[in-house]
Amino acid sequence: VALTHFEREIAEQPAALALLLARGRAAVEEIAAAVRRFDPGFVVTAARGSSDNAARFAKYLLGAHNRLVVSLGAPSLVTLYQAQPALGRALVVGVSQSGESPDVVALVEEGRRQGALTVAVTNGPGSPLARAAEHVLDLQLGPEESVVASKSYTAQLGALAMLSAAMEGDPARWQALERLPDAMTETLALCAHDRAAGARWTEPFGRAERLVVLGRGFNYATAFEIALKIKETAYLQAEPYAPPDLLHGPMAMIEGGLPALLVAPRGAASADLAGTLAALAERGAEIAVISDDGELLRQPGVRLGLPLAAGVEEWLSPITAVLPGQLWALALAQARGLDPDRPRGLTKVTRTR
Amino acid sequence: VALTHFEREIAEQPAALALLLARGRAAVEEIAAAVRRFDPGFVVTAARGSSDNAARFAKYLLGAHNRLVVSLGAPSLVTLYQAQPALGRALVVGVSQSGESPDVVALVEEGRRQGALTVAVTNGPGSPLARAAEHVLDLQLGPEESVVASKSYTAQLGALAMLSAAMEGDPARWQALERLPDAMTETLALCAHDRAAGARWTEPFGRAERLVVLGRGFNYATAFEIALKIKETAYLQAEPYAPPDLLHGPMAMIEGGLPALLVAPRGAASADLAGTLAALAERGAEIAVISDDGELLRQPGVRLGLPLAAGVEEWLSPITAVLPGQLWALALAQARGLDPDRPRGLTKVTRTR
Repeated sequence: VALTHFEREIAEQPAALALLLARGRAAVEEIAAAVRRFDPGFVVTAARGSSDNAARFAKYLLGAHNRLVVSLGAPSLVTLYQAQPALGRALVVGVSQSGESPDVVALVEEGRRQGALTVAVTNGPGSPLARAAEHVLDLQLGPEESVVASKSYTAQLGALAMLSAAMEGDPARWQALERLPDAMTETLALCAHDRAAGARWTEPFGRAERLVVLGRGFNYATAFEIALKIKETAYLQAEPYAPPDLLHGPMAMIEGGLPALLVAPRGAASADLAGTLAALAERGAEIAVISDDGELLRQPGVRLGLPLAAGVEEWLSPITAVLPGQLWALALAQARGLDPDRPRGLTKVTRTR
Repeated sequence: VALTHFEREIAEQPAALALLLARGRAAVEEIAAAVRRFDPGFVVTAARGSSDNAARFAKYLLGAHNRLVVSLGAPSLVTLYQAQPALGRALVVGVSQSGESPDVVALVEEGRRQGALTVAVTNGPGSPLARAAEHVLDLQLGPEESVVASKSYTAQLGALAMLSAAMEGDPARWQALERLPDAMTETLALCAHDRAAGARWTEPFGRAERLVVLGRGFNYATAFEIALKIKETAYLQAEPYAPPDLLHGPMAMIEGGLPALLVAPRGAASADLAGTLAALAERGAEIAVISDDGELLRQPGVRLGLPLAAGVEEWLSPITAVLPGQLWALALAQARGLDPDRPRGLTKVTRTR
């Protein structure tokens, strides 16, 4: 049986990150030095789709470790309204696998025109985005064949984590990063072992039309990215939430039988997720949990526990926690007879304005 | 028949905004003068739920008219991670009807501690949020009884639009604002007339479990707010998107029979929405449209056209465009036998951390 591109690239992720850590560090240190010289007042990102979820990770990481406020940029301000939001004191980071989407390029160009420090995080070192930005952080992935992104997402997270670590200048951050490829490999192996042992990954979840995916703090981005994978491959309407946002209204739509996936690695956000789990269980939701906390995985009301390798610090846990989500999306797609390499109506490069 | 609180407060919105325009202008001009003196480098908002959707409107408005980059603040950076993102050069705007949620208050307090200019936009002038901020923009609504917010949302939008106009100092903006209560009244009357004339508002939409709501630019916020109303009152999973974000992945889940609501008042974003309408119609979606463009409302493939008063400038159209969405959410709830004043599991004041 031939693997799909999506499966093959999911498996390639630990090696891709290891390569990026080995080959990309010099460029990252150079960009970090430029950021220190520029001393930005804030950060604006330009991205769409999975890359926008990577930007969402950067919002928490740069806020928590680098004291930088991040705004997820609104390209339409530039492309539709011809506005010129003041970017002169900003670090503008364009994130895109292909580097081809005109709206992402337009926002970076506007930043550069105003004197912002501009960085492209991309797998397309010769792309329009790379040409628009002053600095390029090349993901060095080789071609990503799967329309549904996986290795480009974890590489973008890795690249942004490397940039944050270089800006901080703390060797402990780099040591944690260096351990990450092994933790990714172990997480993929744990999931494979779990399925081989007969865990029911898709029952009853695959019969739903909709579900919610919860994550908070560093893993708010992970909830968004897993929800997007499920939409793209299994066509379920998976909607991401932080628990407080769920409580401010959408909780009303939670009912018996509705599937809920909780992204809950150990960390500052895990108590909040455990409380949410209890509230969802009380409403009769069918609950799946991604965690490295065995106790949480076996908590009453949990129908499916998706395991993570232990020992990953919370700030890097989005890079392991997304992996079971990718595999779960794949399993849901296959249970529904769908080919993850042919997502309905999508193409590898999307150009929007 | 007694009106529900939700219905009564939907109807009160034009008068509430007229009152705010009359009574609030002096306070707004004072805050705008303080903003000019402070000369912020960027803006950070602190909000949850409907108020966060009002903040999303501010992101586009302050970007387009006031050249300010807005970051929708992440309270968990402060409450969970004890981080201190650099807010000293920021205008920090807390938005909350009650002014009670500790996470919103915490982010504003952190801004004030660092020397940011802090403003509370709230209906609770004696609330913890109002006490935390240096300046208070009081919505002056009297009590909002409905758990599901309506008049506080349009008043927040109005207050933020007044602040933007005062910062710009262009009398034409104020003239447009002054015309708005009449346009709101006319929009509500158009919708009532349309239903009285027998328009089928809830067929086939009320039978779905899920739908998408599309809006862009200024009305990206409107898509979020209408989706939230539908979740809170009718318990359908309504998910908001900007059209480019739909194209970068989620388009795969659009299939025949899926309802889609497009928020498409005339303006810079309307061509994009018209293109999206055609793409959704091709996939067999059941389409409802909110617009002041009669041609778009009658376009082939549109099952339900929800009318708006003509002559509202695009930057203010979110304040009229949300009204048919509130009424539609109400109609969907009633068609499903649900009481909009008793949304499952919600309370009027939500306190999250």
